[in-house]
Amino acid sequence: MPLEETTITLPKAEIPRTWYNVLPDLPEPLEPYLTPDGKPVRPEMLSAIFPTSLIEQELSPQRHFDIPEAVVEALSRWRPTPLTRAAALEKALGVRSKIWFKNESGSPSGSHKSNTAMAQAYYNKKAGIKRLATETGAGQWGTALSIAGRAFGLDVRVYMVRISLVQKPGRKTVMNLMGAEVISSPSDLTEAGRKAKAADPDNLGSLGLAISEAVEDAAGRSDTNYSLGSVLNHVLLHQTVIGQEIKKQLAAAGVSPDYLIGCHGGGSNFGGMAVPFVPEIKDGARITLIAAEPESCPSLTRGKFTHDYGDVAGLTPLLPMYTLGKDFQPPAIHAGGLRYHGASPIVSSLVKSGMVKPEAIGGPELFRFASLFARTEYIIPAPESAHALAAACMKALELEQAGKPGNIVFVLSGHGLLDLAAYEDFINTY
Amino acid sequence: MPLEETTITLPKAEIPRTWYNVLPDLPEPLEPYLTPDGKPVRPEMLSAIFPTSLIEQELSPQRHFDIPEAVVEALSRWRPTPLTRAAALEKALGVRSKIWFKNESGSPSGSHKSNTAMAQAYYNKKAGIKRLATETGAGQWGTALSIAGRAFGLDVRVYMVRISLVQKPGRKTVMNLMGAEVISSPSDLTEAGRKAKAADPDNLGSLGLAISEAVEDAAGRSDTNYSLGSVLNHVLLHQTVIGQEIKKQLAAAGVSPDYLIGCHGGGSNFGGMAVPFVPEIKDGARITLIAAEPESCPSLTRGKFTHDYGDVAGLTPLLPMYTLGKDFQPPAIHAGGLRYHGASPIVSSLVKSGMVKPEAIGGPELFRFASLFARTEYIIPAPESAHALAAACMKALELEQAGKPGNIVFVLSGHGLLDLAAYEDFINTY
Repeated sequence: MPLEETTITLPKAEIPRTWYNVLPDLPEPLEPYLTPDGKPVRPEMLSAIFPTSLIEQELSPQRHFDIPEAVVEALSRWRPTPLTRAAALEKALGVRSKIWFKNESGSPSGSHKSNTAMAQAYYNKKAGIKRLATETGAGQWGTALSIAGRAFGLDVRVYMVRISLVQKPGRKTVMNLMGAEVISSPSDLTEAGRKAKAADPDNLGSLGLAISEAVEDAAGRSDTNYSLGSVLNHVLLHQTVIGQEIKKQLAAAGVSPDYLIGCHGGGSNFGGMAVPFVPEIKDGARITLIAAEPESCPSLTRGKFTHDYGDVAGLTPLLPMYTLGKDFQPPAIHAGGLRYHGASPIVSSLVKSGMVKPEAIGGPELFRFASLFARTEYIIPAPESAHALAAACMKALELEQAGKPGNIVFVLSGHGLLDLAAYEDFINTY
Repeated sequence: MPLEETTITLPKAEIPRTWYNVLPDLPEPLEPYLTPDGKPVRPEMLSAIFPTSLIEQELSPQRHFDIPEAVVEALSRWRPTPLTRAAALEKALGVRSKIWFKNESGSPSGSHKSNTAMAQAYYNKKAGIKRLATETGAGQWGTALSIAGRAFGLDVRVYMVRISLVQKPGRKTVMNLMGAEVISSPSDLTEAGRKAKAADPDNLGSLGLAISEAVEDAAGRSDTNYSLGSVLNHVLLHQTVIGQEIKKQLAAAGVSPDYLIGCHGGGSNFGGMAVPFVPEIKDGARITLIAAEPESCPSLTRGKFTHDYGDVAGLTPLLPMYTLGKDFQPPAIHAGGLRYHGASPIVSSLVKSGMVKPEAIGGPELFRFASLFARTEYIIPAPESAHALAAACMKALELEQAGKPGNIVFVLSGHGLLDLAAYEDFINTY
């Protein structure tokens, strides 16, 4: 089939101009964030580490936020991103379902993380901040914030989960090349890091621990703010450009989606894809939202819905979310971006009210589908994105067996060119 | 400035439908290829390793070749490629010249090599061939042919220059993932490889030696052909999609180019960019064509124009070209794709007749400009492409000093995400 029909691109003029805030449209209102003594967090309590503008976005009932012109300009370096029909993958699977993927891998960082990184850097710069501290798991968020810091003139320090640094040294090179400082976490630079190392000198690190280090760093310096790549409401808000574009693209292709699938770690790419569809699902649209998380870190499918800290040291507010407990030590899987004990409060709320279906994905199938995608679509998926891809393939096969082909859309949140050790392991094992 | 004005994209319908053959338009006719006894090579002599269709393209006086529909379809997965104004780079350099880059890094292999790989796989498949043998320096060509083999149903064996395999193990992973076999060269599988290892067990390999191994492999099996990623006329022919698209894009932007710059190893990306402009240059257009080669492997600037073998073992015909001698052992620079003793006969002819200006580029400036590009345009260039980029930056600075800004176009032949060791070395050294 001609490629015009398989790749839906949008002109630059169609970049979304507003972010969509799902808070007023959630089936159940979001429970408040809590302080350790159980009282609701007041906005000003967050101002030691976030600019006022982002705190406002975090807690606002306002349905739409204008995207600042400078952020639109930054996003327009790579957005709108293509929505592509994976026709060769469908053929290889032998399914009649149509599989589309929203390709976020063409961004400066190679993943969807750049969408919120640019916005966060912009607002921090505007607030007079000179320096950002953050954590990174797989390295995608750290890369995105390093580039965004460069774009808006901010210094960036990244606490990178130790096991990820070992698995993908190239990520550090990229961040250094962009001018950022990269610290192996747990480090000796923070109380949280020193404590973790004292308890276990071989600590491989985790996202939750790296968050503690970055928050402690930011809280201790007035010129520094903290920047988070997932979980929080304002991060999902910035990622709604993904879902908004998908809507336009599906409409242009005349396609009604049956399944929308994203991988889930902290929830930002899944949420950014899914929440713009919430109003129409509430109005009766038959769309199934699937959050694909790793079997080995199953917050949504095996976690408990409660208030829990977002980090290991307990420096963040208590968030209403599905969690495996802040002390859960995830195994050293290659999908470092999904090694998180908790989940986005918004996604948790949608799971709790039944609007999002979580699925745990794992085993050799994961990389088998990822390899099939690489061999048919010629793009190597990030191990994180492979979870969404595998869920999409399994859904297509299931629908085929049931004789009911449908329209499946998944987010390819990033490419895996800096995650090749994962594929090398797979090739050597199977 | 709005991005509409800085990135010129073409619709899928504008993919070139013919390849342009410069042979009839060269200022001086190309000298014949010779056998070891000094007689002109007859087409049938090449049929042990190439299909008839490609031999015809190699030696034909025909000005245009239709691109087969299946190849157009394969190319349309990523073509036309964007022509982007490097406005942020210009600003960082402080120049008034406009710098545009033709971005070939978005192809399945991450480089321009996919353009000819798809064509060569198509013609070999059509000729009933089951298996292709080839060499790779940096790994870009091997990756491209692995994917093309997958696309058209051919097995692929890649002899990879040993030093490149050590420098970038990720390249092997990608080729394996695509189903290709990767052999470290020199190997024990060929006479040429065994001889080289006997002479020097620590031989780091070279493109010329890996070519010998692949040619020997292909010549010895009737189901196998040889496939070359550069140098030869039919390879440059397939790469003319680059120059043809640039022409259309510059016309769409209303820009008259003053300088067209490509990096030069075997000559395929440079030639593919440059030759479509030869007719108008002959008609008086004031366009300077610059071939940027590495100081450490300076075939065009320091080599001798003569007939020489394309490989170390002397298995190829003698080609009329600039050469450092087939036994030249290039140093282990990171730009593995440029470590070649010879040059394309077409580019050599254009250099000899004064239509192409070669420039040797090297030293820390190379990666300094590459890093500047990464920090401003958010794309990490392949070390090969960095030569073109550095030449473009130096030209812009030179024009600035002379008070005569102009329009500079260079080809970003590939991204450097699988070449990060080169950047890591640079960061640690400077």
